[in-house]
Amino acid sequence: MYDVMIIGGGPAGITAGIYCARANLKTIIFERECIGGQIASTPSIQNFPGFISINGADFASNLYEQAVNLGVDIVIEEVLDIKPGKVKTIITDDGEYQAKTVIIATGAKHRLLNLPNEEKFIGKGISFCTSCDGAFFKGLDVAIVGGANTAVTNALYMSNLCRKVYLIYHGSKLRCEKALFDGLQEKENVEILYHSSVVEIKGEDELEEIVFEKDGERHNLKVQGMFLSIGMNAETSLVQNILPLSDKKYILSDDCTTAEQGIFVAGDCRNKNLRQLTTAVSDGAEAANFAIHYLENEAKLVGTI
Amino acid sequence: MYDVMIIGGGPAGITAGIYCARANLKTIIFERECIGGQIASTPSIQNFPGFISINGADFASNLYEQAVNLGVDIVIEEVLDIKPGKVKTIITDDGEYQAKTVIIATGAKHRLLNLPNEEKFIGKGISFCTSCDGAFFKGLDVAIVGGANTAVTNALYMSNLCRKVYLIYHGSKLRCEKALFDGLQEKENVEILYHSSVVEIKGEDELEEIVFEKDGERHNLKVQGMFLSIGMNAETSLVQNILPLSDKKYILSDDCTTAEQGIFVAGDCRNKNLRQLTTAVSDGAEAANFAIHYLENEAKLVGTI
Repeated sequence: MYDVMIIGGGPAGITAGIYCARANLKTIIFERECIGGQIASTPSIQNFPGFISINGADFASNLYEQAVNLGVDIVIEEVLDIKPGKVKTIITDDGEYQAKTVIIATGAKHRLLNLPNEEKFIGKGISFCTSCDGAFFKGLDVAIVGGANTAVTNALYMSNLCRKVYLIYHGSKLRCEKALFDGLQEKENVEILYHSSVVEIKGEDELEEIVFEKDGERHNLKVQGMFLSIGMNAETSLVQNILPLSDKKYILSDDCTTAEQGIFVAGDCRNKNLRQLTTAVSDGAEAANFAIHYLENEAKLVGTI
Repeated sequence: MYDVMIIGGGPAGITAGIYCARANLKTIIFERECIGGQIASTPSIQNFPGFISINGADFASNLYEQAVNLGVDIVIEEVLDIKPGKVKTIITDDGEYQAKTVIIATGAKHRLLNLPNEEKFIGKGISFCTSCDGAFFKGLDVAIVGGANTAVTNALYMSNLCRKVYLIYHGSKLRCEKALFDGLQEKENVEILYHSSVVEIKGEDELEEIVFEKDGERHNLKVQGMFLSIGMNAETSLVQNILPLSDKKYILSDDCTTAEQGIFVAGDCRNKNLRQLTTAVSDGAEAANFAIHYLENEAKLVGTI
């Protein structure tokens, strides 16, 4: 039996694993696809303190080595079910595992436009996070796709960096807070394209041009960057019957604890203000810390760990 | 005029600087002593994700380079006063600065026993944070000094790693939660030394032995590690008349914002659950993010940044 089972091998999950292992807890991490999660496919991380610049794959490989060196078991298995209780059971596509604590660090995925070429250009012009990648486009022209708060916030952010920012939205009225909308009105280098949808993405190795459709007509737009701000899908279907979720399907938790005894949550799958590498690793440390205390307390109650 | 003034050049302050500079804000960091803060004197950081192990001085130097490369001004000046208002003024020992936002990242300092030799052995046997440094003492004997929740939590943590843990406390009754006390009772490798005070620290290059006094008699104790858990002093006197502080003098803020418009807080000086490198950099990102949004909003209201 493990002390801690962690679902998700992104930065939040692996940081939790590092903290648990250092507290001498027998720890396993389940990852279904790729160690490092989203960060593994990021070409260059420049907003994580300590690294002037590091390739996402290298960063992910460091995370892996760091956890494994400390004795954490990391398995590439998909978790299919979690059975809560004093002892929790996890059923994967390859076996069954038990522990007294579980940390959910399943992450979230950015929504895509579902166009040909799209995945190929992620990290090569297509991006999601302006505070992660915005600075790469200083002085250039970019498009932001979306019409809600995140899209408008990203347009404002990029307007301070870029020559020209196009905000491409299929609707006729932005769905953002008035203050954000007012801010946008004052930006001379932002052009809002209503009733518009991106239909094609062009470029050799890097994004060079997009095609958008407006009122039935196609228009070409030369941009070096495109930020997709059309929402995220929280990867929380696994816990939808166990933990309360927000209307956007994030796990509701103010501090990485949950109402379910011995189940904690960390990273992008948690309902929170800012989804960044920095906040993910902080969540991982917090969740691990709660798990460590929970097991101490549990030991007192039942006499064994 | 700057956009953002950050007080404190530890991991929280520098991370905030990195985020602000990447958002194209004109940013200055004031540090009074040493870039990196506490972390700069840590011999080996092993619980920060991405680095299997890094020397604190190297980590601090990376932080410095990363911020300076992005155009952040970092000055070694002591901030003597902050004048709030729409435009904030900072008075240092060397000049006067202005900006519309301030991020307080002044940190906290661990209390010491004030014994000769003590500072010499910090990082060479004397430590403060079990989840940072506890794993270095696996299988060895350590002393924990203190008698409140943190001391008992640290004793429990180390009891899972060490051969023997001595909890040295001057009082006759631990001042911790009952659950923690009960947990301690079940640990066979923990010995509580009441009415005891450490009076001498011995060793060549590393800590080898401590001397404690109990009921007027001196006793020698061979330990490889000693964790001081006698509290921290929040470095918040600068803001005591501006921001509400907890009874332990930490700045009260749930999310890095404060009641004072345009003033944000990050890192160990904030009233929070867990003080770690991971949580410090998360705070830095959060505070910067709020400052960026505040300035966007402010721009809308007054027409200029």
